[in-house]
Amino acid sequence: MSNLDKLIRLFEQFPGIGARQARRFAFHILTLPESDSRELADLIGNLQGSVIECTSCRRFFSRQGGTTTECGICSDGERDRTKLMVVAQDNDITAIERSGVYDGLYFVLGGTLPLLDKKENHRLRGNGLRHIVEERVANELSEIILAFAVNPDGENTSRFVEKLLAETVPDSGVKLSYLGRGLSTGSELEYADPDTIKNALSNRG
Amino acid sequence: MSNLDKLIRLFEQFPGIGARQARRFAFHILTLPESDSRELADLIGNLQGSVIECTSCRRFFSRQGGTTTECGICSDGERDRTKLMVVAQDNDITAIERSGVYDGLYFVLGGTLPLLDKKENHRLRGNGLRHIVEERVANELSEIILAFAVNPDGENTSRFVEKLLAETVPDSGVKLSYLGRGLSTGSELEYADPDTIKNALSNRG
Amino acid sequence: MSNLDKLIRLFEQFPGIGARQARRFAFHILTLPESDSRELADLIGNLQGSVIECTSCRRFFSRQGGTTTECGICSDGERDRTKLMVVAQDNDITAIERSGVYDGLYFVLGGTLPLLDKKENHRLRGNGLRHIVEERVANELSEIILAFAVNPDGENTSRFVEKLLAETVPDSGVKLSYLGRGLSTGSELEYADPDTIKNALSNRG
Amino acid sequence: MSNLDKLIRLFEQFPGIGARQARRFAFHILTLPESDSRELADLIGNLQGSVIECTSCRRFFSRQGGTTTECGICSDGERDRTKLMVVAQDNDITAIERSGVYDGLYFVLGGTLPLLDKKENHRLRGNGLRHIVEERVANELSEIILAFAVNPDGENTSRFVEKLLAETVPDSGVKLSYLGRGLSTGSELEYADPDTIKNALSNRG
Repeated sequence: MSNLDKLIRLFEQFPGIGARQARRFAFHILTLPESDSRELADLIGNLQGSVIECTSCRRFFSRQGGTTTECGICSDGERDRTKLMVVAQDNDITAIERSGVYDGLYFVLGGTLPLLDKKENHRLRGNGLRHIVEERVANELSEIILAFAVNPDGENTSRFVEKLLAETVPDSGVKLSYLGRGLSTGSELEYADPDTIKNALSNRG
Repeated sequence: MSNLDKLIRLFEQFPGIGARQARRFAFHILTLPESDSRELADLIGNLQGSVIECTSCRRFFSRQGGTTTECGICSDGERDRTKLMVVAQDNDITAIERSGVYDGLYFVLGGTLPLLDKKENHRLRGNGLRHIVEERVANELSEIILAFAVNPDGENTSRFVEKLLAETVPDSGVKLSYLGRGLSTGSELEYADPDTIKNALSNRG
Repeated sequence: MSNLDKLIRLFEQFPGIGARQARRFAFHILTLPESDSRELADLIGNLQGSVIECTSCRRFFSRQGGTTTECGICSDGERDRTKLMVVAQDNDITAIERSGVYDGLYFVLGGTLPLLDKKENHRLRGNGLRHIVEERVANELSEIILAFAVNPDGENTSRFVEKLLAETVPDSGVKLSYLGRGLSTGSELEYADPDTIKNALSNRG
Repeated sequence: MSNLDKLIRLFEQFPGIGARQARRFAFHILTLPESDSRELADLIGNLQGSVIECTSCRRFFSRQGGTTTECGICSDGERDRTKLMVVAQDNDITAIERSGVYDGLYFVLGGTLPLLDKKENHRLRGNGLRHIVEERVANELSEIILAFAVNPDGENTSRFVEKLLAETVPDSGVKLSYLGRGLSTGSELEYADPDTIKNALSNRG
């Protein structure tokens, strides 16, 4: 297999990319000025070295020089340390920070636990979460917010986290909460599903 | 203009129907057995006579013989008369009844009040709503639920109803509530808009 | 079943209309001025009487008074009677006339013959087509153009018509032709399917 | 700007990629085994060195060792050297080879000439094409097939190539041809545009 084909093969493993677009990516790189394709290669090759996983929340962040091992959010003294929001992935933090309404801390679980997948997902940081919670329960933690997608995999992941924390949380006074459900922006009643209507009604206020 | 063209013109005014589909409808009728096209014509011609507007909630219902002027929901003694949900249109009631979680009464406002439309919408039954509320406040009514779409027109309609009821409701002990907002079925955090995240967070529980 | 439900049921049989839109149609009619819903009913009820099938091409046209039994195209002395284009349905004629490049006559077969449907389609006017062709072969007819969709059902319909005319056409000097194939407006080579490329290449010029 | 952000910025310049997907690409790379992200970087960094532009048709191909400067198609003695198909980009060749119906040679122009773009496109290999044609006219070339998209930019590019070859081709006996137009796979007459119907009719056979 030629280098071109190998590269196309790797691009096909990018999220959401099929054979045709992978091929277009390769041609895109072929038409770049050499300095640009070189920069792209360097950034990719050094990404894992220049970006580190925060030892607290586990999200990736850029080590801009310095020797810090905690990301900007975790090391920000202004954030509310009584709240810990558990999300599936880094991108979820981006969306929540964009809304500007949450000032607590995060923990990135590293994915969801698919409902139909029997085998354990070794990339999920279940133990990491348990350790963090055990540690903080003794300190300031008062609320853990489970923030997963409203779909079967998201629900299953909530169940997984509940079990994981079943020994730590119940007697600790820490509250386990869930993002509220109801009508989201743009919802029209006529097209809303029964579950959403049910949630919208029981969360009315 | 031929009768065929006139009919196509009327079909073009059906909700969501363009010129091409209107034409297809006409050809569909041309290929029906004559008894079917005759039945269709009769049902349409007599619809307004056989369907009446409920004098309480204003939704359309079939007068199946009888002399009732209230629909099956309004005349059902089991429904909870302390709750009144205000919706834009009949189809919204269909969606809510399908969810099986609401047992109160309804009022069909007859549309929404577009944010950018300066002129009054004469089809909105604002006065009808006010009269019903004034009448019931003295009786059992304890909650009015505004159930409009989560979009600018829906919000504007909520503001319109609030003003409409500003003299009646505040001193009456009746609670004005709104359908809850947050993540709807299928929502993923990564793609959720800031308002939805904000609502999901403040309605967490 | 109420009249409202019966009407919704009939609307659900309109081409491309599902349960929800059928319901919207009924509510649309309920909100029309009575004169409009009455006119709609009359037009539908009288459509089959005011529109007749052309005895030559079989398309529907409006009998505007008069006693004509041929449509405007078939009775137009300027049209080229040496060409006969066979199409599946009336709407195809509308599209071809819109292009303004065909001046021959038409025959509406009344549908296509689905590839996987074993049973005969009794609405197809196969015999009618054969009679017309037999009659015209003796006169001026020199070309029959089969104009069906480029999909399996369209191809199957072409085969059906070829067999149907197998006794009449071959020795008659009449040419059986097919609409040309190749790149249609908007086609990009990169996304073209192999058959289209093959046709585009063999029809190059 | 952090390295992570720089990389996201570069991914946003990939064809068809927006801000959100660019970010997902970066996270995808962060979760790759280090050997994989290293391989990806190497392949990108060395792509321009391992892939060369064919000196004849100008498409990119992998130099698999060897010192060849012509791609597999151009150096294949079985291909028909009397035909030269001019395409906009490498991907078009992929589509045409997939159809398996063309056995001539190619020339990759390097893009199209947008109708509304006044300034010359310096990446178009107009001179390269002219030289190739001048050289081959004296030899075996008998047909040049212009194979651009059926849209305004494609048409404009055909005009551009015609002018470019206006001094060479007309007196040479070489035929300038164009991919055939008409109904493409899946076309239904009812939805076909007038130009496509016109082409389908004039290319009937």
